[in-house]
Amino acid sequence: MSTACPIPESRYTRIVLGHGSGGRLSQALLEQVFLPRFSGETLARLEDHAALRLPLAQGDRLAFTTDSFVVSPLFFPGGDIGRLAVCGTVNDLCVGGAVPIALSAAFVLEEGLELELLARIVDSMAAACREAGVEIVTGDTKVVERGKADGVFITTSGVGVVPSARAPSIANVLPGDALLVSGPIGDHGIAILSAREGIELETVLTSDCAPLASLARAPYEIGLNVRFMRDPTRGGLSGVLSDVARHSQVGVWIDEGWVPVRREVRAACELLGLDPLYVACEGRLVMAVPAAEAEHALGALRSHPQGRDAAIIGHATEQSRGLVRMRSRVGGERVVPLLSGEQLPRIC
Amino acid sequence: MSTACPIPESRYTRIVLGHGSGGRLSQALLEQVFLPRFSGETLARLEDHAALRLPLAQGDRLAFTTDSFVVSPLFFPGGDIGRLAVCGTVNDLCVGGAVPIALSAAFVLEEGLELELLARIVDSMAAACREAGVEIVTGDTKVVERGKADGVFITTSGVGVVPSARAPSIANVLPGDALLVSGPIGDHGIAILSAREGIELETVLTSDCAPLASLARAPYEIGLNVRFMRDPTRGGLSGVLSDVARHSQVGVWIDEGWVPVRREVRAACELLGLDPLYVACEGRLVMAVPAAEAEHALGALRSHPQGRDAAIIGHATEQSRGLVRMRSRVGGERVVPLLSGEQLPRIC
Repeated sequence: MSTACPIPESRYTRIVLGHGSGGRLSQALLEQVFLPRFSGETLARLEDHAALRLPLAQGDRLAFTTDSFVVSPLFFPGGDIGRLAVCGTVNDLCVGGAVPIALSAAFVLEEGLELELLARIVDSMAAACREAGVEIVTGDTKVVERGKADGVFITTSGVGVVPSARAPSIANVLPGDALLVSGPIGDHGIAILSAREGIELETVLTSDCAPLASLARAPYEIGLNVRFMRDPTRGGLSGVLSDVARHSQVGVWIDEGWVPVRREVRAACELLGLDPLYVACEGRLVMAVPAAEAEHALGALRSHPQGRDAAIIGHATEQSRGLVRMRSRVGGERVVPLLSGEQLPRIC
Repeated sequence: MSTACPIPESRYTRIVLGHGSGGRLSQALLEQVFLPRFSGETLARLEDHAALRLPLAQGDRLAFTTDSFVVSPLFFPGGDIGRLAVCGTVNDLCVGGAVPIALSAAFVLEEGLELELLARIVDSMAAACREAGVEIVTGDTKVVERGKADGVFITTSGVGVVPSARAPSIANVLPGDALLVSGPIGDHGIAILSAREGIELETVLTSDCAPLASLARAPYEIGLNVRFMRDPTRGGLSGVLSDVARHSQVGVWIDEGWVPVRREVRAACELLGLDPLYVACEGRLVMAVPAAEAEHALGALRSHPQGRDAAIIGHATEQSRGLVRMRSRVGGERVVPLLSGEQLPRIC
């Protein structure tokens, strides 16, 4: 057993297996990279868990969610794996009606990863946390041998409080309800794809990756009856609509011409043979409200900077229960199937 | 964009990239592998997060913790990565005085992983959850290309409730306090190492990997003043004692002869040039109580099936603050340093 170390812990510029040991090198990594950036008091106590006082009133529920992030490349126009890992989990809390309280972050690092690159990712996570108004309160770091991971994988989990009056659910949509999206779809997926494949677009398209805490609150603040809310990530808009059709046992009808899609996203999709309906977003909301509240909901979204391009895209119906149907831009109606396999691997 | 799939979703025997798509293949994986095994109602609702009603009384806190598991090999005597992922997170909650409530599980799967093997891991997680009295309520699955991960990595997070009267902390230990361990140390690390390296021991040594929910409760149930409790995983017993010395600013004194170590673990350590003090456990507790409560604490641990071999191993002192000192079995005293780098990579 070697307790001697030829290089002072602070001199490493790349991750070595010892950084995952639980010994002095792990401590050095924590002190050099994580603690200065995640500056919360709870994390700094370094207990095996965070102990949080929750602002939980009678009838409130705890929201709890998790996601692993394996996006490739690690950096892309408009974001990076760190920003994505914070926004993705914050958004999963928000769309459930929860007020995000705290996040955890667990890192699997590949031996050889540059510490400077890890520091940039952690900086980005800290910035996204400030934007979303949450703190990372607990975490973990593991290291695997070179070739046994791909740079870094991050798993974030989140806790939040769901006020008793809110109970949105993918199973709550009723025939007649209006369906809205908060902005143009597919930006994230196409930004990743163009970064990965080196595709030159006319303009630089950036990911829409953003925390939606305040946008998701807007419809509740004016008392709307939010049936469900989701962020259309993997599987895109079509994935969310298919889930609505299946879990609420309604038909879903949308008009292709009403779905906002940026010109450059549409162009890239045509070039690549993709359908924007299946391309991931990381900063958009899809929601349903009763038909009578549709215009109010649209107004609430549009009056928020993140929802300026919001649109009503269709409604739930009694016909074709379980299916998503679309009036296409060239006329005619067709079923929008749930994608079978992978369209864009490692998009988040 | 291909929406057609040549093989029905249920016919795959190995993980393909499409299993991480958020489309029909993801759904098939969920329905074939995860839902039948994690049978809780909350998970089955498949919302983006779990909404939990917490039994939180005035003054109680929420415990929140996370760990990634990258153990190699995936199966070892006495456990597997799934059991480890459940026990590790349950134990992080328990040692903080929390009653575990719910877990999340996020999987990073390597393309080509056999579904049957994944199912065995998930079965094992479900069994460990039943043992620990917790449920997996939310989760995620990502797939990366062959060679970009090592079979499967699992990140579990956990939430629990810390009753207001409990506030153990690694910073709470006072000079004079007694230090106890709940059983022999190093079983997990040596079991992994012998499985990985094909080392033949005289007898088959199994990992001590186990949920400690009921053992950790025992000292509280008889009203003991638990200063801190930890499970000595990565970094082993020495890692925990170093943390006590540093965070509580006390000296830690132990007697090597009082620390329980199985004969076969000691033999394997001698063969491999390891010190059992640094070898990971996954089913042991280390704790401190005031000296006057030491015998009661020992009795409480020994009367539990998981603590039959518990021992008092030393105490905190006013001398040598910040250091761990040990009276060795051959006589004389020495400082036990915090390990610098990696002794056994990917032990958990």
